[in-house]
Amino acid sequence: MMGCQRRRTLVSGAFLLPRLLCLMCFAVISLAENTEMVNVVTERKAEESHRQDSANLLIFIMLLTLTILTIWLFKHRRFRFLHETGLAMIYGLFVGIILRFGVHVPQDLNDITLTCAVNSSPTTILINVSGRFYEYSLKGEVRDSKGHDVPNAEMLRKVTFDPEVFFNILLPPIIFHAGYSLKRRHFFRNLGSILTYAFVGTLTSCFVTGLVMYGCVVFMKAIGQLGGDFFFTDCLFFGAIVSATDPVTVLAIFNELKVDVDLYALMFGESVLNDAVAIVLSSSIMAYQPEGDNRHTFDGSALLKSLGVFLGFFSGSFAMGAATGVVTALVTKFTKLRDFPLLETALFFLMSWSTFLLAEACGFTGVVAVLFCGITQAHYTYNNLSVESKSRTKQLFELLNFLAENFIFSYMGLTLFSFQHHVFNPFFIIGAFLAILLGRAANIYPLSFLLNLGRKNKIASNFQHVMMFSGLRGAMTFALSIRDTATYARQMMFSTTLLIVFFTVWVCGGGTTPVLSLMHIRVGVDTDQDNSVTAPDGMTQRSTKHESAWPFRLWYTFDHNYLKPFLTHSGPPLTSTLPACCGPIARCLTSTQAYENAGQLHDEDTELILNDGGSLMYSDMTVSTDAQGMPTASSQLYSLAGTSDDPLDRELAFGGTRLVLPTDEPPDPLTSFPPPPPSPPLTDPLRHRV
Amino acid sequence: MMGCQRRRTLVSGAFLLPRLLCLMCFAVISLAENTEMVNVVTERKAEESHRQDSANLLIFIMLLTLTILTIWLFKHRRFRFLHETGLAMIYGLFVGIILRFGVHVPQDLNDITLTCAVNSSPTTILINVSGRFYEYSLKGEVRDSKGHDVPNAEMLRKVTFDPEVFFNILLPPIIFHAGYSLKRRHFFRNLGSILTYAFVGTLTSCFVTGLVMYGCVVFMKAIGQLGGDFFFTDCLFFGAIVSATDPVTVLAIFNELKVDVDLYALMFGESVLNDAVAIVLSSSIMAYQPEGDNRHTFDGSALLKSLGVFLGFFSGSFAMGAATGVVTALVTKFTKLRDFPLLETALFFLMSWSTFLLAEACGFTGVVAVLFCGITQAHYTYNNLSVESKSRTKQLFELLNFLAENFIFSYMGLTLFSFQHHVFNPFFIIGAFLAILLGRAANIYPLSFLLNLGRKNKIASNFQHVMMFSGLRGAMTFALSIRDTATYARQMMFSTTLLIVFFTVWVCGGGTTPVLSLMHIRVGVDTDQDNSVTAPDGMTQRSTKHESAWPFRLWYTFDHNYLKPFLTHSGPPLTSTLPACCGPIARCLTSTQAYENAGQLHDEDTELILNDGGSLMYSDMTVSTDAQGMPTASSQLYSLAGTSDDPLDRELAFGGTRLVLPTDEPPDPLTSFPPPPPSPPLTDPLRHRV
Repeated sequence: MMGCQRRRTLVSGAFLLPRLLCLMCFAVISLAENTEMVNVVTERKAEESHRQDSANLLIFIMLLTLTILTIWLFKHRRFRFLHETGLAMIYGLFVGIILRFGVHVPQDLNDITLTCAVNSSPTTILINVSGRFYEYSLKGEVRDSKGHDVPNAEMLRKVTFDPEVFFNILLPPIIFHAGYSLKRRHFFRNLGSILTYAFVGTLTSCFVTGLVMYGCVVFMKAIGQLGGDFFFTDCLFFGAIVSATDPVTVLAIFNELKVDVDLYALMFGESVLNDAVAIVLSSSIMAYQPEGDNRHTFDGSALLKSLGVFLGFFSGSFAMGAATGVVTALVTKFTKLRDFPLLETALFFLMSWSTFLLAEACGFTGVVAVLFCGITQAHYTYNNLSVESKSRTKQLFELLNFLAENFIFSYMGLTLFSFQHHVFNPFFIIGAFLAILLGRAANIYPLSFLLNLGRKNKIASNFQHVMMFSGLRGAMTFALSIRDTATYARQMMFSTTLLIVFFTVWVCGGGTTPVLSLMHIRVGVDTDQDNSVTAPDGMTQRSTKHESAWPFRLWYTFDHNYLKPFLTHSGPPLTSTLPACCGPIARCLTSTQAYENAGQLHDEDTELILNDGGSLMYSDMTVSTDAQGMPTASSQLYSLAGTSDDPLDRELAFGGTRLVLPTDEPPDPLTSFPPPPPSPPLTDPLRHRV
Repeated sequence: MMGCQRRRTLVSGAFLLPRLLCLMCFAVISLAENTEMVNVVTERKAEESHRQDSANLLIFIMLLTLTILTIWLFKHRRFRFLHETGLAMIYGLFVGIILRFGVHVPQDLNDITLTCAVNSSPTTILINVSGRFYEYSLKGEVRDSKGHDVPNAEMLRKVTFDPEVFFNILLPPIIFHAGYSLKRRHFFRNLGSILTYAFVGTLTSCFVTGLVMYGCVVFMKAIGQLGGDFFFTDCLFFGAIVSATDPVTVLAIFNELKVDVDLYALMFGESVLNDAVAIVLSSSIMAYQPEGDNRHTFDGSALLKSLGVFLGFFSGSFAMGAATGVVTALVTKFTKLRDFPLLETALFFLMSWSTFLLAEACGFTGVVAVLFCGITQAHYTYNNLSVESKSRTKQLFELLNFLAENFIFSYMGLTLFSFQHHVFNPFFIIGAFLAILLGRAANIYPLSFLLNLGRKNKIASNFQHVMMFSGLRGAMTFALSIRDTATYARQMMFSTTLLIVFFTVWVCGGGTTPVLSLMHIRVGVDTDQDNSVTAPDGMTQRSTKHESAWPFRLWYTFDHNYLKPFLTHSGPPLTSTLPACCGPIARCLTSTQAYENAGQLHDEDTELILNDGGSLMYSDMTVSTDAQGMPTASSQLYSLAGTSDDPLDRELAFGGTRLVLPTDEPPDPLTSFPPPPPSPPLTDPLRHRV
């Protein structure tokens, strides 16, 4: 069983077939010209099957349509206890019940069984039919007659997707959208904490869950409740897949109620990154294959190999994603593609998609690459896009995300009844719920304590409780668990995971509003206003700089002085930041707009470089620093931020929404500020403190 | 050979495989748990194949990216001789050449050949491998060793799509977009002529082309140049597939140069509808199967059956498309979904897609249904959408159309070299070019003559020449011809079609601008201004009413009085148009906005019902007829159109752009006009004539 790799996983029986998507990708039917009667029959069958596929896909479309209409009704009447994803699951459940118990399709098994002397199952075989060769491709193993005890097995099989569909079609837009819509300012402000939760936390959670599950499994074995093998690596794998949190339901409510932006950033950032961690972690655990016969014992070198796989996959995927993002930024910067929003949007879409393909072609994890591509696109490329393309790309990925997400959740509901190999074991299920509770607690509370030692802006205990409570499981957990349902252990995991997702989405998701009021979390925070002044209890009031450790500050400076000017139209001209020897290159790479925009707010999402010394810094030109022609909102932000003289504070103040404190200085964008210090900004003597 | 149905067509050899899309829809690889070594090998191969698929798809994405960048350069520099589709073909050609002659992939044939005693080739077989059953699905027939004379056969096979991909993924968005972006005012204004060209013209063209080709084939047989069977039905089939014109290149230039809107409407309307006619026609010809042995002779009942198939497919698909359009209109009208543009857009997208699935599930033609769905959505649903959804849906389908179209054209270029069974026969090719020339001429000139007998607004001879010249062949012709390349005849057709597409896109497309100036076609017509005043030579100046035959006028009245008010928020309230006995139903179905909007211009795309009698007509309320709160552009249109008192003229004046004549009356929207006559408007005594 451990022989399975991360892709093309074991599938028992023929129950997981890409029948629905066959509609998109028909198997080509070859016909012998001489045997026309046979052909007509085959064609009729093929046409019948095509119609069936269309009808099945239609069921899903209708489901989604119904979900949309109901969710409109909920939003219209301001029901907040059920999110669209929860609703999609409920509708999926109903359709699953109907398909399983309501519809009776006469079975039509015209399969011909050949008994041939081959001792392996190749992916492709050629069959010699009276002198003509036909090519057949392997679809899967058919297990005994196991599937036939369920009525309508054929029907259920038809509404079952190939699990790879999730990884190759449905997850990428969801993950890209998450990266693309990260509220960058708060994300970067809390980067240290987010990375800690996402990496250390997810690893902790994985191992705690794995250990608890191993205890549970040993107990089950002792009392004879285990019907098959279940190794420690399986437990760890389970820990990895249930460690990916997906609080989409909670975040939607946060957004609607305007909950504290830092809490939002922490939870969203963690959930986005731990998806990536979980997928790479599960691949690494699957790659743990000690040599020799005793394949389920501890082996140092295999462990090291797994660690290497983890680091390799992660860094490789990261590099791919960042690379295509950078290429897109450069292309959009150095061409005037923005005059043609359609071309620009198409290019953006294709480049982002090519990240996925590139990563997969190189053997890395496409989904992870797409995440980092999304973040890079949002951080750099977005600033180069025309106004129309900005809204087009946002809306496009918003739509794709919405459709894919609701599709996955309604499919989850359906699977509870249409999947034919469920293993529901009450001991395992209780153990699993206990394990994820402990795992989540082991992630949030100790790490928050440690982080609070370093953070000036403490994470309050009520925030910690909300984060603990909001550990919902969603699309990624489901996709990882359905990817491989070949063995008893995996089937039990899959069934349990399904229940975990249902429970967390309905109960935790539905209980968000009560929990928020129970925990006295302030709602209705206007994100465009400064909310640090009236920060909730545990948050002390600090400017951004204090909250960032020096590696992040170094990164900010580098990004602000070199990467932004290189990749976008904003930032100080490279001619001023690069050493003099690089002058010609710098002039080449700096767009004319950078000079024009040098002292201006480029747009809301571009960091403001507020008159960085004006003509003092730039020897070859004088920079106009007035803010004329700015949109109203930006101008307002501008004047608010004009009071902070710390470039990092100011920069972050315009990444998304504003959090820095206004001082008593009259806002005046025309005031000349001293140039930003080339030394690490911690030494900036002019910083305002509160 | 004639046994082939419209779907799941004959494919010779294994050269048309859905390898690329396999990336999206992986075949599930089943693994025997006991034979781990074999599994690891199989998995590695599967992973290898997945990587290869990703890389292949990446090639196409890169091609499209390159096309976008180049076309930006062309647009930037205002090169008009090459359209993006032509460019995509050229890049496709280059990649095809590289793949064919440049790349050498070591062949890895691990196929196992089983010689078994079966006398048919079923779609699914079960193979018993040492006691375990594996399911295999048919991929296609492998022809002798024909494919092996081409180097890199395996590689070329991998970059080859299943032709059904075109019909099920790429064509629907293109066709929907065409329907959704029909300039409705000019479309309806010229509806009679467009329908004549599209139906009568395409049929004429099909039969003329078929006859010429039959002559050519007979000649070739006589001189021994024909290497296989070629029946009259094949010739007709060829006529059907090359009758679908696709002047996308020409229309893009028309749009850019602002060529006369009527000419644009005629050509665009014809090309949109003749796609539908061609696809249904080719299905009907394939359905022509005389009984008995002599299968290629004339048979009256088979002909009648074909005719029935044609009418059935067409009307069924039309009904499906219109039905889902109407349902979407009703849903968007009676819910307040417009408050949530994302939900609205998602619903719109899903409903439009479900049209395709519904039609396919019922055995009709999805592509045709999608076309009529698009027209219905544009005519009714669009008016109910929120402003944001209007732009979102337009932009979404614009993007999908752009990507799909360029993908098809670059694939066309690739196919010239990657397709391994080309049959280039110089006689056939020359004959085909002659045939399409004659076929197009037999469509345009006689029909224009006949239409001009009835039209007040004559189609000038220079317009006819441009229409003749603009008979480009494109995506639909390609998709229809690649659908079935099993026999010698079909292969020859496919190769010839490819050349026809290349020639027409490059030569006719590139020559558009010279031809326009040669034909003295006026360019730079501002579509928002009245261009009838300065109409080009052949066009006499008439108001809309004169140009419409009575069936169309009946339809307009019905649409305006009943359908629009029922399906949208605009139009006169049903309470005023329906008889008194239907009062309660009418009140139920009329939205409150309809009362408010009754005398107003709802928006630019909604027909204006200009103070239709005010309180005179509507017994239960008084209608305010001032134009307050209108967007500037609309107000301008409003005041321009306020001078025409014929409701049809006024209505049409706001369907898209304005063509009616301004009179000397001072424009005053507040002026009360008499109620529109309930009798056919031809008797309207107040109509202004020029």
